[in-house]
Amino acid sequence: MKKSMKKILPLAVVSSLAIGSVIGMNQDNPEAQAKESKNGKAKNVIFMIGDGMGVPYTTALRYMNDNPDTPEFEKTAFDPYLVGLQSTYPEDEKENVTDSAAAATAMSGGVKTYNNAIAVDNDKSDVKTVLEQAKENGMSTGLVSTSEITHATPASYGAHDESRKNEDEIANDYFDEMIKGEHKIDVMLGGGTDFFEREDRNLAEEFKKDGYSYVKSTEEMKNDENEQVLGLFAESGMDKMIDRDEKQPSLADMTTSALDRLKSDKDGFFLMVEGSQIDWGGHDNDVVASMSEMRDFEKAFEKVRDFAKENGETLVVVTADHSTGGFSIGSDGDYNWDPNVIDAAKRTPDFMAEEIANGASVEETLSQYVDLELTDEEISSVKEAAATKDKVEIDNAIEKIFDTRSGTGWTTDGHTGDDVPVYAFGPQKEKFAGMIDNTDQAQLIFEILKNKGKIKENK
Amino acid sequence: MKKSMKKILPLAVVSSLAIGSVIGMNQDNPEAQAKESKNGKAKNVIFMIGDGMGVPYTTALRYMNDNPDTPEFEKTAFDPYLVGLQSTYPEDEKENVTDSAAAATAMSGGVKTYNNAIAVDNDKSDVKTVLEQAKENGMSTGLVSTSEITHATPASYGAHDESRKNEDEIANDYFDEMIKGEHKIDVMLGGGTDFFEREDRNLAEEFKKDGYSYVKSTEEMKNDENEQVLGLFAESGMDKMIDRDEKQPSLADMTTSALDRLKSDKDGFFLMVEGSQIDWGGHDNDVVASMSEMRDFEKAFEKVRDFAKENGETLVVVTADHSTGGFSIGSDGDYNWDPNVIDAAKRTPDFMAEEIANGASVEETLSQYVDLELTDEEISSVKEAAATKDKVEIDNAIEKIFDTRSGTGWTTDGHTGDDVPVYAFGPQKEKFAGMIDNTDQAQLIFEILKNKGKIKENK
Repeated sequence: MKKSMKKILPLAVVSSLAIGSVIGMNQDNPEAQAKESKNGKAKNVIFMIGDGMGVPYTTALRYMNDNPDTPEFEKTAFDPYLVGLQSTYPEDEKENVTDSAAAATAMSGGVKTYNNAIAVDNDKSDVKTVLEQAKENGMSTGLVSTSEITHATPASYGAHDESRKNEDEIANDYFDEMIKGEHKIDVMLGGGTDFFEREDRNLAEEFKKDGYSYVKSTEEMKNDENEQVLGLFAESGMDKMIDRDEKQPSLADMTTSALDRLKSDKDGFFLMVEGSQIDWGGHDNDVVASMSEMRDFEKAFEKVRDFAKENGETLVVVTADHSTGGFSIGSDGDYNWDPNVIDAAKRTPDFMAEEIANGASVEETLSQYVDLELTDEEISSVKEAAATKDKVEIDNAIEKIFDTRSGTGWTTDGHTGDDVPVYAFGPQKEKFAGMIDNTDQAQLIFEILKNKGKIKENK
Repeated sequence: MKKSMKKILPLAVVSSLAIGSVIGMNQDNPEAQAKESKNGKAKNVIFMIGDGMGVPYTTALRYMNDNPDTPEFEKTAFDPYLVGLQSTYPEDEKENVTDSAAAATAMSGGVKTYNNAIAVDNDKSDVKTVLEQAKENGMSTGLVSTSEITHATPASYGAHDESRKNEDEIANDYFDEMIKGEHKIDVMLGGGTDFFEREDRNLAEEFKKDGYSYVKSTEEMKNDENEQVLGLFAESGMDKMIDRDEKQPSLADMTTSALDRLKSDKDGFFLMVEGSQIDWGGHDNDVVASMSEMRDFEKAFEKVRDFAKENGETLVVVTADHSTGGFSIGSDGDYNWDPNVIDAAKRTPDFMAEEIANGASVEETLSQYVDLELTDEEISSVKEAAATKDKVEIDNAIEKIFDTRSGTGWTTDGHTGDDVPVYAFGPQKEKFAGMIDNTDQAQLIFEILKNKGKIKENK
């Protein structure tokens, strides 16, 4: 006993070096996590990526969730599962702050590569992804995102391309790249009809011919029970959560639908779920949009957590690919960040700007969608922008009201290099603790999937 | 065995709720950490605070430390010991982003309080600090900082005041507030002669009369072996590491000197070490200064880590009180952050601005202290600022060169609310893992100190 105890205790501060001994621990004591799974191993793996979800975003969600009637800030759904941080830098000749493609390739394939790379190495050769490994193992697989499903992050799990921009080719890969004679992704839910229903090729029809359901609304998705499905709910990216109509499902809805289809596979499943547009809000320096998307992502995590708690054999890892926008809680010397200002928005500034650019009245639009007593100066600033008829100008003017009133700061319309949080739940979660690198995510999941295979062989 | 294993394994994701069971675990299995300490308990506690050291700062240090000849970024000295993050919000009527006083009071006394509070609660009543608990236990105690030793962070461990601004009164507290007939702080090393050698009172003399050494230079500090010492190396805050002459010790030097004096106490010691001016660089939006101070703090941690490794009975916790400046790695759309630009500075912009404001030539000053080929435009921008003879203007102009060239962004001259990293090393480090609150730091250390007392009583 003494020997095994020694091996276990240093886990709280797992460094890359210590990971080896952790694995050893699990092999020595397969019954150690009996409470959670039959053999202490993960049968299913759910990997959740909050795109752009750096530490300021996860902290801001806690500010948003605060109940002012209690002295403490309420914890987010993620908080109880924090295990550490992850470094995100790419291996790119010119840039040392990652894009989503290089970061997702690191997490899907375990290699550092150049910005824009979709599951290819620096020499542009294909890199095997954990989703592909899962399919090789005979597991079911799924990708869920609120961007088009061919966007950089999901693409890096299910396709290979020298550039994230080749979204047609990425969609082709989803269909054409077979593993053991099967399509490699059983469940695809997100946006992106543009890349599937094309003039040169109709991949939606091709998938249907091969037995997939093709669904295009929340209702269709919910009424369909096929284990293989392509669900596309927008031409490219879906609307932000607070702008979304009921035809477009929430991330939580899509995640639940994916789990319902995948969970019956006796060989287990791998599912990647992306909160894609936290990042898009960050790029736009739009705190309303980002917080809307953080809440959508949190609700999806709650579904995953509840499933994993009930299931007992599911490893869940939640992290981000990078942070975006240089978002700060507090700005311009202000020591207060007001979530109520953000909650006062009923639609994103983008949505409002679109209406105004299309001729709607500034006063009426702001009054309809912003539950704040705006000053004459604030309304004038949007009117001045509206006079330019430039949607971006109008958007920026509205965003500025929310930034100034809430105390939100931004430094860039791009990404930043700061480490991002890592949360883990379920069997083998210890492997992900401490300061890890984004490549460790894939390497650890490969180990889990390979060990899983070995156990099956030993039976 | 099964029962105790179950208790141990969930540690990697310790939530506040789980802390109780962790403590239970240690009591059940006192031999569990035999490798590190005789009874798995910490005899000594070293608490290190990187003031303002949010995640962007610890990540930037990794960029700074990178050896370009290797593909991976080298880890910082802190990285292997990361155990989680800490929330930092205060309990203040008007502000929900903390200052250093409220944050340090949370970490020293375990209570949320208002900004400016020095170890007093919201009703202004004194709060007992972990340093005071240690002294009550009969342990030796120390405070080390590069700010004046009466500044908010160290003050919140060794004094009580309704305002951080009352630095004379704080210095008085260090002398006047006795515990069991003894001064409560055995080792004080930092800046701040202004607050001790005063017209109304000379506390340095008073401490000397009570048996303390009083040292004012690196040499005097190193030549002195007294267990009780007051060391003040500047009128208020010390110079930044890269501006410091040899008369002023490094934080590593002061930390080593403190450990040498404290380590012989058979009852153990409590030591708080602050890298005070990481934050001051952040307030000034000066990346050169902040990185200089991060390196000073990292070197001090290396001394602490080496001591704790050798000693085996020392718990080390490293964290920050908050982040500062909205510092971002990458700005204005740039996906590259260049540490070489920052390394090219031989002095801080403040130092250079001072020389220029005092009449030194712009070209000569920049050429002497900045190892970069500056453009005519960059030199002109500093010349224009120099024409105003305003030191702040000159400082800002020089800082802008480093920001632009390195890709550094800032959003505020104040603090930000994002969670900060927590590192831990040595016995009982598991207690600090996961997502914790700044008040947990004090509550956990109180438990450790109280359990320590109980063990002695049980003997």
